[in-house]
Amino acid sequence: MSRSGELRIMAPDLERFTVEVLKKLGVPEAEARIVADVLVLADLRGVDSHGVGRLHLYVAGLESGVIARRAEVKVVAAYPALALVDGGKGLGQVVSYQAMRRCLDMAGQAGMACVTVTNSNHYGIAAYYALMALERDMIGISLTNSRPHVPPTFGRQAMLGTNPIAMAVPTGRERPWVLDMATSAIPLGKVEVAQRLAKPLREGLAVDGDGLPTTDPEVVLRSGALLPLGGPAETAGYKGYGLSVLVDILTGVLSGAGYCAAMSPVWCASPTAHFFAALRVDAIRPLDEFKAMMDEMIRALRDSPKAVGQERIIIHGEPEFEAEERRRREGIVLPAKVVESLQEIGERLGVPLDPAPPLA
Amino acid sequence: MSRSGELRIMAPDLERFTVEVLKKLGVPEAEARIVADVLVLADLRGVDSHGVGRLHLYVAGLESGVIARRAEVKVVAAYPALALVDGGKGLGQVVSYQAMRRCLDMAGQAGMACVTVTNSNHYGIAAYYALMALERDMIGISLTNSRPHVPPTFGRQAMLGTNPIAMAVPTGRERPWVLDMATSAIPLGKVEVAQRLAKPLREGLAVDGDGLPTTDPEVVLRSGALLPLGGPAETAGYKGYGLSVLVDILTGVLSGAGYCAAMSPVWCASPTAHFFAALRVDAIRPLDEFKAMMDEMIRALRDSPKAVGQERIIIHGEPEFEAEERRRREGIVLPAKVVESLQEIGERLGVPLDPAPPLA
Repeated sequence: MSRSGELRIMAPDLERFTVEVLKKLGVPEAEARIVADVLVLADLRGVDSHGVGRLHLYVAGLESGVIARRAEVKVVAAYPALALVDGGKGLGQVVSYQAMRRCLDMAGQAGMACVTVTNSNHYGIAAYYALMALERDMIGISLTNSRPHVPPTFGRQAMLGTNPIAMAVPTGRERPWVLDMATSAIPLGKVEVAQRLAKPLREGLAVDGDGLPTTDPEVVLRSGALLPLGGPAETAGYKGYGLSVLVDILTGVLSGAGYCAAMSPVWCASPTAHFFAALRVDAIRPLDEFKAMMDEMIRALRDSPKAVGQERIIIHGEPEFEAEERRRREGIVLPAKVVESLQEIGERLGVPLDPAPPLA
Repeated sequence: MSRSGELRIMAPDLERFTVEVLKKLGVPEAEARIVADVLVLADLRGVDSHGVGRLHLYVAGLESGVIARRAEVKVVAAYPALALVDGGKGLGQVVSYQAMRRCLDMAGQAGMACVTVTNSNHYGIAAYYALMALERDMIGISLTNSRPHVPPTFGRQAMLGTNPIAMAVPTGRERPWVLDMATSAIPLGKVEVAQRLAKPLREGLAVDGDGLPTTDPEVVLRSGALLPLGGPAETAGYKGYGLSVLVDILTGVLSGAGYCAAMSPVWCASPTAHFFAALRVDAIRPLDEFKAMMDEMIRALRDSPKAVGQERIIIHGEPEFEAEERRRREGIVLPAKVVESLQEIGERLGVPLDPAPPLA
């Protein structure tokens, strides 16, 4: 461990640790492997807020019984292209992995399919399940609701989740195109970082307890809320508010789990709902032609003229793939707070946390 | 006609006028009725930028032969839930109406379905086709690509359309929930209005020819571009950029029509592509329970505490339904420029434009 309390660890070791912890809590090995894969992929992709730093929350959920150790997943599929999955309050990652697998199977037969999920829990990074579609050369979509953090435009009470939208699209020589975005203007994590650094936020990202604009992270965390994508009404924040409700409808309302505003603000206290979709590209046009056009579109965007002062146009998914390549090679550096949390869990359950060997 | 050159006209008269104009140009009556219905519904709903003010563009397209008088629509549906429609360069409204009808039929059988469309033209308001799903108590989704007006984040050349996303959802006692939003921060029309009034734009909506922020509508229209939803990178404009590419992929790339940046900047010079989806709510849960939960969600949002200085939280679709109710009753007031354009068309083709009787 470094003096700062950071720890560098290789992805397979971090996965093994996570699997062992979950097994100690009664999660079957195959299911523990799915959860570990989702959490560690977040750390690999640079989405540290959704990685093993949250393992303690899942551990607490399993220990208190709020999250079921074995996900008894039930599927109701009366039609070939639309199904409901009841996750039996299992681990969100396990439920979602099974739901997306089912969705991909159905899309294989019907050309496209959607699965809406109720009685699940927090599923980690939305992109994970969209990415599953790429193995079958399909387009994958993944949505989830979440606890309320965002008021509607002109409101001041958090009524909507950060409700993310993820889509993954197969490509040829280019890396897959992968969008994974919260429908809020910023994630809560960035407000917490600003508070720690005592730095003001940009305008148009958050409001205080009166629903009025603020740039003070302290105020936002104490009594305020996040604005939807687009910020205040004048810069079209009602569109972000609309996208958040769109996700809420396809997840919570369609599945019957309930809409965001009715969810408990406590982690995992209410059932979480998801929505997955998969499209067979080759149901429409030859796969290689589609992939060649995706490559062409990506290159056209990347090579288009830059704004003055800018050197790079970023394609969605690129930064995450770059982070993953680097971190798979060099290991994942966990911040002190995460290391402490993992060590506490490991010591209590008798699972050692192995640091990576020094870099060559 | 009023002194300002405005004209108040009742919706059925405006529809009749539009149908007669299109018939004179060789469009079959049934197809002309669809186009008239889509255009006049835009005027009724207060989306004046997409109403009969654009009839002259369709007329020009039909007269030059760029738009086919009769849409020879071909459907390739190898799978039960995903089909490709080739619009044969017909009127976008006719092609899209037929494509969405097909999509609803397929969803009726498969539980949900998607149809992607190539070789179409500008289809008017995206919401129209999403609203068609409500007659069958389904959820409807409608996306379209459009000519480039938006650069990617950190770019300065318009590579993406305003690529709208529309979704309509059935409700019980409340009005249907209807989202219809461009994925750009503002529509071009609002920049034109600001120019006419010589008023600066809000910050974070547009850039100049160097890709740098500007609030000058003159500059935007001469050499600049619209920012994606979210504005610059600092306020998450890369999310709006991502949503625009998402629409581009599901419309232009999936259908094979081509991606936005490859489209001609000239109206109707390139084939337009759309994407429609429909979901059978009752494939998942009893329809009345779904509708009751939608009502409850809408009321929870509307009745939630307002920001200081605000009196109303708007539900998506409400302002348009209110405008429609008022304008169906009182008529549509067309601005002078639109009146002139319609009168020019009417005189040339021998179709009279009948004003509404004076208001009681």
